Amino acid sequence: MAHRINMKDIAREAGVSVATVSYIINKRSDQSIAPDTVARVNEAIKKLGYVPNLGARALANRKTRLIGLVIPQAETGSRMMLENSFYGEFIAVLEEVLRQSGYSLLLSGEDVNKSYVELARERALDGIVVVGLPADQDARLLLEENIPLVFVDSYLEGNAYSSVNIQDEEGGYLACDYLIKNGHRNIAFVSGFLTQEGVNRKRFRGYGKALSENGIGEKEEYVLSGRISYSYGIEAGRQIAAMKVRPTAVFATADILALGIMRGLKSEGLRVPRDVSLIGFDDGFLAMSAEPSLTSIHQDAGQKARVTARLLFAQMDKGAACIENLVLPLSLTVRDSVRRI
Amino acid sequence: MAHRINMKDIAREAGVSVATVSYIINKRSDQSIAPDTVARVNEAIKKLGYVPNLGARALANRKTRLIGLVIPQAETGSRMMLENSFYGEFIAVLEEVLRQSGYSLLLSGEDVNKSYVELARERALDGIVVVGLPADQDARLLLEENIPLVFVDSYLEGNAYSSVNIQDEEGGYLACDYLIKNGHRNIAFVSGFLTQEGVNRKRFRGYGKALSENGIGEKEEYVLSGRISYSYGIEAGRQIAAMKVRPTAVFATADILALGIMRGLKSEGLRVPRDVSLIGFDDGFLAMSAEPSLTSIHQDAGQKARVTARLLFAQMDKGAACIENLVLPLSLTVRDSVRRI
Repeated sequence: MAHRINMKDIAREAGVSVATVSYIINKRSDQSIAPDTVARVNEAIKKLGYVPNLGARALANRKTRLIGLVIPQAETGSRMMLENSFYGEFIAVLEEVLRQSGYSLLLSGEDVNKSYVELARERALDGIVVVGLPADQDARLLLEENIPLVFVDSYLEGNAYSSVNIQDEEGGYLACDYLIKNGHRNIAFVSGFLTQEGVNRKRFRGYGKALSENGIGEKEEYVLSGRISYSYGIEAGRQIAAMKVRPTAVFATADILALGIMRGLKSEGLRVPRDVSLIGFDDGFLAMSAEPSLTSIHQDAGQKARVTARLLFAQMDKGAACIENLVLPLSLTVRDSVRRI
Repeated sequence: MAHRINMKDIAREAGVSVATVSYIINKRSDQSIAPDTVARVNEAIKKLGYVPNLGARALANRKTRLIGLVIPQAETGSRMMLENSFYGEFIAVLEEVLRQSGYSLLLSGEDVNKSYVELARERALDGIVVVGLPADQDARLLLEENIPLVFVDSYLEGNAYSSVNIQDEEGGYLACDYLIKNGHRNIAFVSGFLTQEGVNRKRFRGYGKALSENGIGEKEEYVLSGRISYSYGIEAGRQIAAMKVRPTAVFATADILALGIMRGLKSEGLRVPRDVSLIGFDDGFLAMSAEPSLTSIHQDAGQKARVTARLLFAQMDKGAACIENLVLPLSLTVRDSVRRI
């Protein structure tokens, strides 16, 4: 390995002590150093191409400038489903905002059985963003350790944590209500796993509320849940096509599921919206690019990422006094996948 | 901040010296320690819930277990385009493989004007993967520093670096040749920026080769390039629709571009494949989910990620002796977007 320029080299080049170099590099304000000494040291830094090792610096002033983005996996041994375009945009915007503020993003699709508290400790993360997690033990542990923390799309008890959510229940209501207003009464619901409290359960509750307000009974066989992926969507679409009393409309809690459903229905000779109406959730570019284009509940993934960064920075600056719980609004984007019957 | 359990606490609990604890934790083999001492220390570690700080450990044995994935941006101030499903799958699989081997992924959409060498030094990265970069100064600098390094989809001079590529030129040839075999002679080419040597230029060369072998002259107005995004695809589709001598077929170097082109053509009243045939590149789930489904040049993003990790680990284990240059094969997936004329 080539010799790595260190403070000793700078000190030798500038003709000052290593301590002086360290004071200048770490911008310590508790020591006054003559301006020409500072200039000499900065010149030496430039000449030798010195770059501080953030790992070493982290030990000195307890900052790593590393932010963890943890996307816990719903199943053991699985990988992140970044084909869901919501994640793509959220990650890209968060990375951009952090980078512009001098932070790096550590991305982890943590296994559901592994503790992200361990990751936070091992990496001495300056902050951590967790996407899509139900209330759990780990959250309390992180709180005790005072690690700046923002939960996104997570439903935790109490308001001890900063969080960014969308109006999931209202979104489910909005979608189902729109289908009912278009004459549909047999409406299927397709989502990610409903086993734990979380965004899928909330959206399901909104769906149920719209049904009951309109005097429509929930049918168990119309509720399908699995992995939020294109391939599970195809499977769900085929199942719906085979139902004895076939739903005339489907609400999918993610556009990527809706695209799969469209394909699954088509493989059984059914067309959207001619035979089955379909509404998605997220309204990213997948909804636009679908054919027919997909009516969908719109959320702004970029805004979500920016707000998340803001809440995290606030805690990093001012500590736990800055806990905030934000719920971002949703809206309905009408396109071509729902037919009035 | 809660007190962080450190080696001193372990030493006190186990009734041994801090040095002994350190030897055991860092698995140093140059000291022999009595088995019952090891057992006592391990018990204390378990009891107190001690987790080693990898930052501190990195300084001691020069390992951070952090791998950087750098996706340099083609334009200043832009963010990663993860909506391109190739990236989604590549990142998800790479993260999974690294995590299973005890590494963390640092994801950076480095600005085109910023040096990723600085990132590698600042973070003391154990290794770095760079996706989509032409030969440049930075690569040489990293080589001098002996940082394990794999270039993906990058065209560098010489073979001093490990690299993973696909047969880009052959892919371009395959796509264009297939269109010609289906009777097309007016074939447009839509890709990312062609300003630097890279995957787009290679695919363009394959396109040109197929044209010239079939006695078809290249037309400058049929070559469109811009940002690899859905929205640029729409723009290109509209431009193609407006051409005086309209191409009967289009080769797009990314599925996400092809989807945009489909939409742009449709907005001008043109249908794929009725009016214009279309072939994409990548063949991820976007190609499958398109309507009509997209004929595309298939690459295996997951395999690319796994091979990349293997080449990186080989260098980390055995150093520069393990440089390898791999070129993965492509194939043509025929679907519904090309019509014989």
